[in-house]
Amino acid sequence: MAPVTNGRVLFAAIPTGFPVPGETLVYDTTETIDLENVPLHGGFLVKVLVLSVDPYLRGLLRPADVPSYMPAFTLGAPIVSAGISVVLRSELADVPVGSYITGYSHYHDIITAHKEYFVAQSLGGAARLRVLERDPRLPLSVYIGVAGMPGETAYMAWKEFSKAKKGEVVFVTTGAGPVGSMVIQIAKNEGLKVIASAGSEDKVQFMRDIGADVAFNYKTTDVRDVLKREGPIDIYWDNVGGDTLDAAMEHSNNFGRFIECGQITGYSTGVEPMKNPMLIVSKSLTLSGFLVNNLRPKYTDAFRAEVVPKLADGTYKYTEDITRGLEKVGEVLLGVLKGRNTGKAVVVVADE
Amino acid sequence: MAPVTNGRVLFAAIPTGFPVPGETLVYDTTETIDLENVPLHGGFLVKVLVLSVDPYLRGLLRPADVPSYMPAFTLGAPIVSAGISVVLRSELADVPVGSYITGYSHYHDIITAHKEYFVAQSLGGAARLRVLERDPRLPLSVYIGVAGMPGETAYMAWKEFSKAKKGEVVFVTTGAGPVGSMVIQIAKNEGLKVIASAGSEDKVQFMRDIGADVAFNYKTTDVRDVLKREGPIDIYWDNVGGDTLDAAMEHSNNFGRFIECGQITGYSTGVEPMKNPMLIVSKSLTLSGFLVNNLRPKYTDAFRAEVVPKLADGTYKYTEDITRGLEKVGEVLLGVLKGRNTGKAVVVVADE
Repeated sequence: MAPVTNGRVLFAAIPTGFPVPGETLVYDTTETIDLENVPLHGGFLVKVLVLSVDPYLRGLLRPADVPSYMPAFTLGAPIVSAGISVVLRSELADVPVGSYITGYSHYHDIITAHKEYFVAQSLGGAARLRVLERDPRLPLSVYIGVAGMPGETAYMAWKEFSKAKKGEVVFVTTGAGPVGSMVIQIAKNEGLKVIASAGSEDKVQFMRDIGADVAFNYKTTDVRDVLKREGPIDIYWDNVGGDTLDAAMEHSNNFGRFIECGQITGYSTGVEPMKNPMLIVSKSLTLSGFLVNNLRPKYTDAFRAEVVPKLADGTYKYTEDITRGLEKVGEVLLGVLKGRNTGKAVVVVADE
Repeated sequence: MAPVTNGRVLFAAIPTGFPVPGETLVYDTTETIDLENVPLHGGFLVKVLVLSVDPYLRGLLRPADVPSYMPAFTLGAPIVSAGISVVLRSELADVPVGSYITGYSHYHDIITAHKEYFVAQSLGGAARLRVLERDPRLPLSVYIGVAGMPGETAYMAWKEFSKAKKGEVVFVTTGAGPVGSMVIQIAKNEGLKVIASAGSEDKVQFMRDIGADVAFNYKTTDVRDVLKREGPIDIYWDNVGGDTLDAAMEHSNNFGRFIECGQITGYSTGVEPMKNPMLIVSKSLTLSGFLVNNLRPKYTDAFRAEVVPKLADGTYKYTEDITRGLEKVGEVLLGVLKGRNTGKAVVVVADE
């Protein structure tokens, strides 16, 4: 068989604000691959099926000499993210042809490459690739969503940091996203009152459907009005930072727990200061940043036992916003950063 | 015996910035008390011996309708703080004449009144007064310092939040004060590298004397230069907030623990924002505010067993800055807020 095009999404230019589709990320078709003959050197060849597009990717589109918790993407090279691929050829006994491969690590530079095909040398190691144990009732894409890293983030950080007690009040931001929607459902399952925000009426409706007691559109409703009426809060799930974090601090009870999962408002437009850090002292607040990787050893078994079955049987609900075609990654990322997606953003590169 | 003057320190006016001695706090001699005949109503009469003057008092010199974690002082009434008094007369069996009385709570409005004499109705309750168990090797004033609330604050919050490991690096602010100096000594005792800051050369020398590996004067040395050279840090003991907190966040390792004990820079001159709260997320930092009252049930026995003997035998060192005379409280408070004291600020009201 002749070589085929191996489409790639390249990091072509460092953006100054929001990434620009076609400039920041460029879809490139100059590489080809001979699927039958490409040497595996003891490894395996995969075809990429689904890719996850998440806000944190913006932070990696930066100059290589700016330090952060994850290394920057390499200019000119394909970006990487969470994803799932299927094995086409293999020279490794524990990676059978037809098995699904997914990645784990945010610290290393290969999770799943934004290419149609790639060769990996091994499981584990720097690539942290592993064979996916799949519940046949769940579509593959859910494993990069609520059954994967975002779901793990919600469940594991909630278990570790929330110290939730029945009857307490939690405020969840980006409550229609894969992390926030899982937090809402876990909190309701534990008997809390849930206040949740998102940026469209569709999302507000979805948050109500999954059990939020109070759901509001932060673009049309003042967060302080809501928290004044429905709070004070005991737990804040922060995905946004900025002025919403200030408002949550102002309307927190003493001993509030702030789970600092993300601060999306700062990713593209610059960090906003925290107006009154004295409240950490005066209200005895705890603010906890974390990386889900560090929580996995403690909570992976519980996640698989408690959460995955509830997803498979429909107890826990989720939405996906699926876009077809690797060439759309740049647009999808911009959409995610601007809050345009309704549900977990997934790019389908190829069918199973 | 004729009635005697009962001097009092009254909260006379709400300050806008730093309190003004003689205006904010006024020493008043218009009240008299008949020590032999004042009715006890089943309680006890005490003579105040020593009073503690601490930065947090500034926060209580505010309008009554401004909420905070402690109620405001009452305009026109005596202020209260930690202190120790001796019992002159008693109608309570468990409060013998000659015993020493101290207070506990920051939530309630009586600890020890800034008066020469007062009558209390009971131990415990709202007043949280208790009979002091005193190690005879320690002077009374130490029980409002390193053997009292400030020492408990250092020890208990360190045990609860530091997650310290031998060889880690801690940065301690106000390292010459009663809290900071105890943190330095506890951290050295546990095998950490200690960086400590204070605001005078005398204080820098004292921090070196008690074991700080790196001690510097923040008024003459740039904190970022020091942290760049001697860090990054794993633990930050925050007594100051403001730009120093920002610098500590910038120079923290991932998974840094920030013990938010106080933010003195904001107490009189207004709160400074935290410049980059995104670092909480990107470095997986934990920031913990706390009230020592909530840690006492867990750690009081350990504090008495581990810390008090080390103070009594001279292993742990401390300094006191003693001022004689109740009429000096206003000046002493201003000095504390401006960092002029060298050692724990104590006002001696009367001799034992």
